[in-house]
Amino acid sequence: MTHAAVILAAGLGTRMRSPRPKVMHPIAGRPMIRHLLQAVEARFGRVVVVVGPDMPDLEAAVAPHAVAVQRERLGTAHAALQAGPQLGGHDGDVAILYGDNPLISEATLARLQAARAEADLVLLAMRPVDPGRYGRVVTRADGMVERVVEWADATEDERGIGLCNAGVVCARAPDLFRWLAAVRNDNAKGEYYLTDVVALARAEGRSVRAVEAPEAELRGINSKAELAGAEAEVQAALRAAALDAGVTMIAPETVFLSWDTRLGADTVIEPNVFFGPGVTVEEGALIHSFSHLTQCIVRRHAEIGPFSRLRPGAVIEPRAHVGNFVELKATTLGEGAKANHLSYLGDATIGAGANIGAGTITCNYDGVKKHRTEIGEGAFIGSDTSLVAPVKVGARALIGAGSVITSNVPDDALAIARGRQSVFEGRGFKGKKGK
Amino acid sequence: MTHAAVILAAGLGTRMRSPRPKVMHPIAGRPMIRHLLQAVEARFGRVVVVVGPDMPDLEAAVAPHAVAVQRERLGTAHAALQAGPQLGGHDGDVAILYGDNPLISEATLARLQAARAEADLVLLAMRPVDPGRYGRVVTRADGMVERVVEWADATEDERGIGLCNAGVVCARAPDLFRWLAAVRNDNAKGEYYLTDVVALARAEGRSVRAVEAPEAELRGINSKAELAGAEAEVQAALRAAALDAGVTMIAPETVFLSWDTRLGADTVIEPNVFFGPGVTVEEGALIHSFSHLTQCIVRRHAEIGPFSRLRPGAVIEPRAHVGNFVELKATTLGEGAKANHLSYLGDATIGAGANIGAGTITCNYDGVKKHRTEIGEGAFIGSDTSLVAPVKVGARALIGAGSVITSNVPDDALAIARGRQSVFEGRGFKGKKGK
Amino acid sequence: MTHAAVILAAGLGTRMRSPRPKVMHPIAGRPMIRHLLQAVEARFGRVVVVVGPDMPDLEAAVAPHAVAVQRERLGTAHAALQAGPQLGGHDGDVAILYGDNPLISEATLARLQAARAEADLVLLAMRPVDPGRYGRVVTRADGMVERVVEWADATEDERGIGLCNAGVVCARAPDLFRWLAAVRNDNAKGEYYLTDVVALARAEGRSVRAVEAPEAELRGINSKAELAGAEAEVQAALRAAALDAGVTMIAPETVFLSWDTRLGADTVIEPNVFFGPGVTVEEGALIHSFSHLTQCIVRRHAEIGPFSRLRPGAVIEPRAHVGNFVELKATTLGEGAKANHLSYLGDATIGAGANIGAGTITCNYDGVKKHRTEIGEGAFIGSDTSLVAPVKVGARALIGAGSVITSNVPDDALAIARGRQSVFEGRGFKGKKGK
Repeated sequence: MTHAAVILAAGLGTRMRSPRPKVMHPIAGRPMIRHLLQAVEARFGRVVVVVGPDMPDLEAAVAPHAVAVQRERLGTAHAALQAGPQLGGHDGDVAILYGDNPLISEATLARLQAARAEADLVLLAMRPVDPGRYGRVVTRADGMVERVVEWADATEDERGIGLCNAGVVCARAPDLFRWLAAVRNDNAKGEYYLTDVVALARAEGRSVRAVEAPEAELRGINSKAELAGAEAEVQAALRAAALDAGVTMIAPETVFLSWDTRLGADTVIEPNVFFGPGVTVEEGALIHSFSHLTQCIVRRHAEIGPFSRLRPGAVIEPRAHVGNFVELKATTLGEGAKANHLSYLGDATIGAGANIGAGTITCNYDGVKKHRTEIGEGAFIGSDTSLVAPVKVGARALIGAGSVITSNVPDDALAIARGRQSVFEGRGFKGKKGK
Repeated sequence: MTHAAVILAAGLGTRMRSPRPKVMHPIAGRPMIRHLLQAVEARFGRVVVVVGPDMPDLEAAVAPHAVAVQRERLGTAHAALQAGPQLGGHDGDVAILYGDNPLISEATLARLQAARAEADLVLLAMRPVDPGRYGRVVTRADGMVERVVEWADATEDERGIGLCNAGVVCARAPDLFRWLAAVRNDNAKGEYYLTDVVALARAEGRSVRAVEAPEAELRGINSKAELAGAEAEVQAALRAAALDAGVTMIAPETVFLSWDTRLGADTVIEPNVFFGPGVTVEEGALIHSFSHLTQCIVRRHAEIGPFSRLRPGAVIEPRAHVGNFVELKATTLGEGAKANHLSYLGDATIGAGANIGAGTITCNYDGVKKHRTEIGEGAFIGSDTSLVAPVKVGARALIGAGSVITSNVPDDALAIARGRQSVFEGRGFKGKKGK
Repeated sequence: MTHAAVILAAGLGTRMRSPRPKVMHPIAGRPMIRHLLQAVEARFGRVVVVVGPDMPDLEAAVAPHAVAVQRERLGTAHAALQAGPQLGGHDGDVAILYGDNPLISEATLARLQAARAEADLVLLAMRPVDPGRYGRVVTRADGMVERVVEWADATEDERGIGLCNAGVVCARAPDLFRWLAAVRNDNAKGEYYLTDVVALARAEGRSVRAVEAPEAELRGINSKAELAGAEAEVQAALRAAALDAGVTMIAPETVFLSWDTRLGADTVIEPNVFFGPGVTVEEGALIHSFSHLTQCIVRRHAEIGPFSRLRPGAVIEPRAHVGNFVELKATTLGEGAKANHLSYLGDATIGAGANIGAGTITCNYDGVKKHRTEIGEGAFIGSDTSLVAPVKVGARALIGAGSVITSNVPDDALAIARGRQSVFEGRGFKGKKGK
């Protein structure tokens, strides 16, 4: 039977101090909601995300999953209820999850589901290092949950309980929605709390079980400090996986990866490298310090940096070199080609073995649109050359240093476009100072 | 009644291995003495800094506070006594503080002052994780201080005391200076020790009280390792405050802030960014990795980096972009303007919406003095352009790529200044190799 | 009597997932085998390194030490035996060490050797935080070793022993090689294990002693994660030594040093600096963030970065400045000279006090070979100048901005080589958009 998940993601997260929906803040290069969805999609056949009003970016980010809008923020039970119409006919289990708990693992979700065989209602619990003001889970001798007591209402003994409620619940859909509908808001804040379904289930004499999971998976993200903490955990996991896969990192803690970074075996990454989303680095490549890569491909045994920037669409073919203060965008640098110093290469195709001199610039933008530059195999572009696109430089062509190339250069031709040198004796720098 | 503080700052700090006065080593972008003065100024109406001979930089750094010079280094009591002439007529309390204890908090100073209501002499004490060879504070049953015993003179039992003397004292000025004058140097090193005032006060039957403060505030800075440790503590506090204020930092531990860095809510700072002193970044701005900013302003929703350097006087107006390998100095980049690649912009004013092509350089220095460049709104500066200042480029003007612009360009005009292209068939790179 | 060491280094380290011999992976800029050899050379007069077949890079790295090749990988005892022919006539002690234990200290080796006075066979042992599946060292009441028991064969009581075998042994050469030859491979894996020499020695009634050493020195490096861990330990030690020597580092943990980095007293290193091998920085120099230095010299009070790259052969004379986005290779920048922005200086000699404008490029490579550029004292190179080598610019010469200099410029001369400016009214950017 298909299981369904309802993800509560309507919050703005006032402590985040940002106009962005809370679950849209990124971790390792993607919105936190996408981390959660990856685990959820592996375990649940249907997903409904409860969003707030006017959150088009969030709705797009969760597509193709269904969305329910919570128009007023009246509490977690109220939020979960918004998914009722979408899951009306659902007869399987429903789990309620939180968009700001994005690090919950697939394994924990599987255990949550499996525990339904033993109880009518399952909740996730944790044993935080500092239990603080979490609600406590009171269990019976047989291990089943007696009740969940809020910290404010707990006795000293109850406050001494280490098992805390994480808020995630799972039950058969008709049961859960019946309980949700019965939750009342006769409390200090006038909110409908999801936790109340535990008491409602118990009042019906139904069995409740707590599944324990690591605190790290269940900690909520409510502030920029907590966001940074979650980022650090995800980065540590990504780095460990890369090391296991045979990546050499001199200082793994200084390498920032995205969730989808692909690094081949025996690549070497020097300290201080930033990988934005969508980067593939093939086996044996070398990425020097202070490089910044996003949506690009670095092929076998290519060498990048230090101080290289690879932007979307950069493809560095095998054994090619990109050196310091060089930026590539939508550009293919051919096999064994070199662009080693101070260059901007945008919207270009550069043939195998070409040598791009220091200070080469593709003038790809005329203020209205972008144009392409094509450089043939084995061409030699002298230093400080500007290539005014659209323009083609033929194979094995030679461009004199300091040229502005505005028309095509045939294969095997030499092109020069620069001023002639004039020398004026005695008008040097010393004379100038003497004025 | 006004309270006075004497700050001992005459030391060179031989373990620092630097000719610089010890308290002039910076933490978070300002000399450590300035950190201390900020806390001290909040609590004390008069401040006298005891400096060593020939320390003009230090005297300037503590201005407008009074300075007393300790000509010979005869110990801490001797140093404190040098402030006597300046505080001769003072009838309020005097506290003796240390320039190399710069992290003492305003709250601790307040508690030091308040405790004077309960004792004639107050000293600051701490409970270090490793008490080592600190002097121990022996207290009586009523909590008052009996005496301070140096580690070398302490019994095993006394060495077991966790409460250690931090050296800071506070008493009524006439009392304190009387005790200071009575301190003797009949010890192994022949120095006058400030700690001896405790015994002198006790000998007069005066009451002494210890105020406990966190070790982190009272640890001295005597080596480059301890300086780095203090820097780490201050950075951690600055980062935590920034996160609380709503700044997004993917890896806070890689972002270096100065004491006065101002970051607006919902700014995003990628890993590895360095903020020197005097930087303001407004709400919603984005600072990419590997950026280095000092004395500059980044306005709302502007985007900086990666690999940008903003030097003193750079002002990036709202929604403007500064890209990779771009340096700005004393330059305003207008609203929505872009300088995205490999450019040096110094002493320039750039209008709103202007587009500064890759490789643009303002030639602002003629070897003798600096000149200004003005670029009008909506101008389009082609790639690899040199602008020889003083020069003006009008609004909506267009500069051809590779030009050296030496005279003004009117509004709406096109200017080109480059050589003509010549092509020589068959003289390409292949031919060259064949020679 | 001369002592000999046999270093086992034949392994490929399959968990490293690299075609490189395991011991050739670098730590702090040199292969791990070189770290080990430095300690070993201080204590042993003869060294034989046992390598695998086809490891020419490793053989070169260990030169001039003798090499023995293990053609089949039949276990550690078999590997050690390969050194037999080389050490046939040796009558002193022989120690067997591991190439992937590179952090063993000279002090530990000295203690290993000294313990031979008390026992016929000495082995190194450690007390790991997590003893895991290490073999346990069973000692007698008198402290001598009874036997070493493999984890798989150990009783519960034996597994409770904290003292673990590190695998390193030392004995008189004839004894050791006799025992090695007697080791059998009648075990699950069919391998000859070095550890078996302990039982063989004991069977002869010989005395065995364990010398305890820190786990950090004896942990093997078998994966990229363990390699990163070893790198972190070495970096921490290098940084601590630099701080002790009076180097100022704002964030030592972000500065990456090589084993041979030499930093003078009172140099200041901002966060995020990478030192490859062969760098000397003299007293009082300042290295800003995001700088990358390899095989270069920075002399007194010079200033580097941010965003500078110094490649092999760069020499920065006293008080010279290298600024942002500037690369130097095989170039001397004279005393007090400045190259502050966006420049590539390769194969050049630059005189004292010269000013290298932004965007200066030495065109040192013609596609076939490199040529030199010489710039005289006090010369002023205007911005965006290309210097087509071989070329000389005289002392105090002045080069106009945007010039391509192809012929020599005499002392005190002015040279300009650029196009003339043309202006076309009304053809500016606005008009263009209107097309």
